[in-house]
Amino acid sequence: MNGAEALLQTLIDNGVRVCFANPGTSEMHLVAALESYPSMRAVLCLFEGVATGAADGYGRMAGAPAATLLHLGPGLANGLANLHNARRAATPVLNIVGDHAASHQSLDSPLQSDIESAASTVSSWVGRPTEVDALGPAVVEAIEAGGVSTLIVPADVSWSDGAQAGGRATARTRPAAVPDLSHVLSSGEPVAFLLNGSALSEEGLAAADRIAQATKSKLFCPTWPARLRRGAGVPVVTPLSYRAETVADQLDGVKHLILVETGAPVTSFAYPGQDGRLTPAGAQVHQLGGGAAALKALAADLAPDVRARGAAPKHIDLPTGLLDADNWAYVLAALLPENSIVVDEAITSGLKVLPDAFAGAPAHDVLGLTGLAIGQGLPLAAGAAIACQQRPVVCLEADGSAMYTLSALWTHARERLDITTVILNNRSYAILRAELKRVGARAEGPGAASMIDLVGPHLDFVSLSEGMGVPATRAGTVEELAAQFKAATSTPGPHLIEAVLTGSQ
Amino acid sequence: MNGAEALLQTLIDNGVRVCFANPGTSEMHLVAALESYPSMRAVLCLFEGVATGAADGYGRMAGAPAATLLHLGPGLANGLANLHNARRAATPVLNIVGDHAASHQSLDSPLQSDIESAASTVSSWVGRPTEVDALGPAVVEAIEAGGVSTLIVPADVSWSDGAQAGGRATARTRPAAVPDLSHVLSSGEPVAFLLNGSALSEEGLAAADRIAQATKSKLFCPTWPARLRRGAGVPVVTPLSYRAETVADQLDGVKHLILVETGAPVTSFAYPGQDGRLTPAGAQVHQLGGGAAALKALAADLAPDVRARGAAPKHIDLPTGLLDADNWAYVLAALLPENSIVVDEAITSGLKVLPDAFAGAPAHDVLGLTGLAIGQGLPLAAGAAIACQQRPVVCLEADGSAMYTLSALWTHARERLDITTVILNNRSYAILRAELKRVGARAEGPGAASMIDLVGPHLDFVSLSEGMGVPATRAGTVEELAAQFKAATSTPGPHLIEAVLTGSQ
Repeated sequence: MNGAEALLQTLIDNGVRVCFANPGTSEMHLVAALESYPSMRAVLCLFEGVATGAADGYGRMAGAPAATLLHLGPGLANGLANLHNARRAATPVLNIVGDHAASHQSLDSPLQSDIESAASTVSSWVGRPTEVDALGPAVVEAIEAGGVSTLIVPADVSWSDGAQAGGRATARTRPAAVPDLSHVLSSGEPVAFLLNGSALSEEGLAAADRIAQATKSKLFCPTWPARLRRGAGVPVVTPLSYRAETVADQLDGVKHLILVETGAPVTSFAYPGQDGRLTPAGAQVHQLGGGAAALKALAADLAPDVRARGAAPKHIDLPTGLLDADNWAYVLAALLPENSIVVDEAITSGLKVLPDAFAGAPAHDVLGLTGLAIGQGLPLAAGAAIACQQRPVVCLEADGSAMYTLSALWTHARERLDITTVILNNRSYAILRAELKRVGARAEGPGAASMIDLVGPHLDFVSLSEGMGVPATRAGTVEELAAQFKAATSTPGPHLIEAVLTGSQ
Repeated sequence: MNGAEALLQTLIDNGVRVCFANPGTSEMHLVAALESYPSMRAVLCLFEGVATGAADGYGRMAGAPAATLLHLGPGLANGLANLHNARRAATPVLNIVGDHAASHQSLDSPLQSDIESAASTVSSWVGRPTEVDALGPAVVEAIEAGGVSTLIVPADVSWSDGAQAGGRATARTRPAAVPDLSHVLSSGEPVAFLLNGSALSEEGLAAADRIAQATKSKLFCPTWPARLRRGAGVPVVTPLSYRAETVADQLDGVKHLILVETGAPVTSFAYPGQDGRLTPAGAQVHQLGGGAAALKALAADLAPDVRARGAAPKHIDLPTGLLDADNWAYVLAALLPENSIVVDEAITSGLKVLPDAFAGAPAHDVLGLTGLAIGQGLPLAAGAAIACQQRPVVCLEADGSAMYTLSALWTHARERLDITTVILNNRSYAILRAELKRVGARAEGPGAASMIDLVGPHLDFVSLSEGMGVPATRAGTVEELAAQFKAATSTPGPHLIEAVLTGSQ
């Protein structure tokens, strides 16, 4: 077999069955090899940021990596922003970046660039086998590394014969050191947990909730976690606010902050004269390794007879009239299909309202914007839908963010994915309007406004969506959104609804 | 003044008057400062690849840099592919990348990443002033460096007071060593010039043509040069073919290859068993520094009485019937407005036919895909139109490439740019169909085809264009294309024509 075939065989041997691809000439042997490995599902993406974002969505839901197939340095570059989000989400992703054949790399041909430096900014592992018999083992090493791995494959390694598959990766289990926190939890001093990763699964939350009841602790999670189970029947965890002053209220009085699979909380941005650290002054910070398993052990110890409390289902009386910055979320929450995957790139439109609106909705998983690199939502939805083909996906997408990786819609259509995208169209980078004031910048005029308002012309998302084969409608009222969302989620395949929010220009 | 104001003042003092921007929170003081500097034209782009591609187009036409304004590492990452093209085009571009305030950088907040490593892959200069009084001088240094420069500006440097402008940059003129090639040119042995950069201006070509006549040399240029003057009245230079076997014919028998502002020719990709170097065996390679000026000196010496020959204007009888892979180019050439700027990202659709079709068209500048990172065309057109507001821009865009940076159309509309985009829609990555065979890959089945064909669903570029505010039409025949192109180029503002090429699926 040639290198390309050995690569695919090794991937399949390790359970990697999906490859989000935007190949070019240097990857043609890999494309050709797909013919021999029909169990590898190759999903064409029209832009590399779609491929990497989809791999992130797949990995978050499957708990195992998808591959990407990218074309040299510029192809990787186009995928970096969503790999940045994947890195922040701790998602396993295996990038395969084709490069020129070794003999060609010194010729400085047009696409030659420094792939390693670009890859290093997002990857926990970067490798470049230079001989065909090193390729299989390199694939195994990349998978074993976990997180975002980038395997650079020179074309001559792909096309050379004499390769063989690399075998099975060995799971690297590092038993987490679980510190003894009994003195903290029995101290009577106010305790808060900041939960992330596996702690935000249903079983992680159940254990945390039992501990919280027994020790009168509070439970928080990041503003936009990688994956959070939420809704009716699921124990409640409160997202930290995007705003430092609100976090100060949330954590007021906390003397012990216990971090589970996350770092100490910080603001997303710096503001003049403000500290970016959100840990309350005087609070001690503790790390609890081991995620959900550690929480379960702790719950067995501290709260053996306590039962987890699931959120009550909440009946929402649909509001009426024009859509505004808030009411859209209650419409969707009221009509959310059971066990949905909710991709949240609603940004400003979602910050205030989503946690409340969706708290009592049918139980669902929500996937957040971990790295704040916008343009994640539509690709993430594609990957999540492919990972969980029996589950409906609802993609909440801000207008500005949607424009980064809009061609993901074509992949939604081509792969016939069961995704309902709702564009929250406030016709601006609304978050920047707030931020302009918050950083203390002196700007009230048309120059600054022109950098924030997405007008002149308006974006017509119905037209854009239909241009890529996804049927679309526009909603200006609650009644329209409700009818359109019901229709979209009850009809297989992708749909898009442009929700025009009043107050927008 | 604060740092942001000093930055803008220094840019303006150095003639930088356009900034292609996609800002975020860390750049809000720069956005605010735009209010005080109305002579800086800030052009909002909905994706960073649009901003960097536009800066490339601006720089190629203006011969001076535009600035970009990008949001931290992920913002830069999204702009890298078109900066790769700019680097290959030797275009001056000044990237301004906002970063977190210094106090925030150690907190590992969501957007934190290694900006320098990403920037290093495309930049001739990367700098990060950490004190406010270092900002003005750093801007000057970035401009003096030439090429693609990347200035990383921490937010606290932007917002701190006590800054001052950095003054004027000093042009770095390196007098090129002009070797004595008289023995070569008088040897009687076959000589070919490979021209690039300033040698492809009208005066450079005129000098080269006089030398060619006097010495019976041949004149070639790269397949896709950064900027080439072409058409009626302009001396002719032949692009090297994209195909090595054709280049072998083009350079057959050449004993001396004289390189002007370029490296020795190589293939874009490696193919099994083929040498990527295109210099004929046995030919000597010579470097002629100094570009057009050196050619003029040489022409004065070798061909004092020879006059340059301009290409004859060519009357094209419009073909009739369905559009196909070739005839579209003759339609556009016949109807091309005088002194147009032609952006060529037609890829497969243009390779065979454009040089011939446009050779006798009204004189124009053509801007090529220097770095082969697709997604350049629509942004490049925006920047070129802003650099040359009195000149019509015609953007020839392949369907696959258009989808990379499609939101450039919104900037075309918002800035009311005089750009006629023609999408050459063959409904595939057609170049890959050829490349799959050329690399010797064994693939005839549906798996490989699904990575190459842009079908299921078709892309509807009329709908996509209208969704971003650019009026659009579709042409299936020569007659339709001719009528639509005439109408578009005679009506101010942006237009798009989707030319559906038969033989496409």
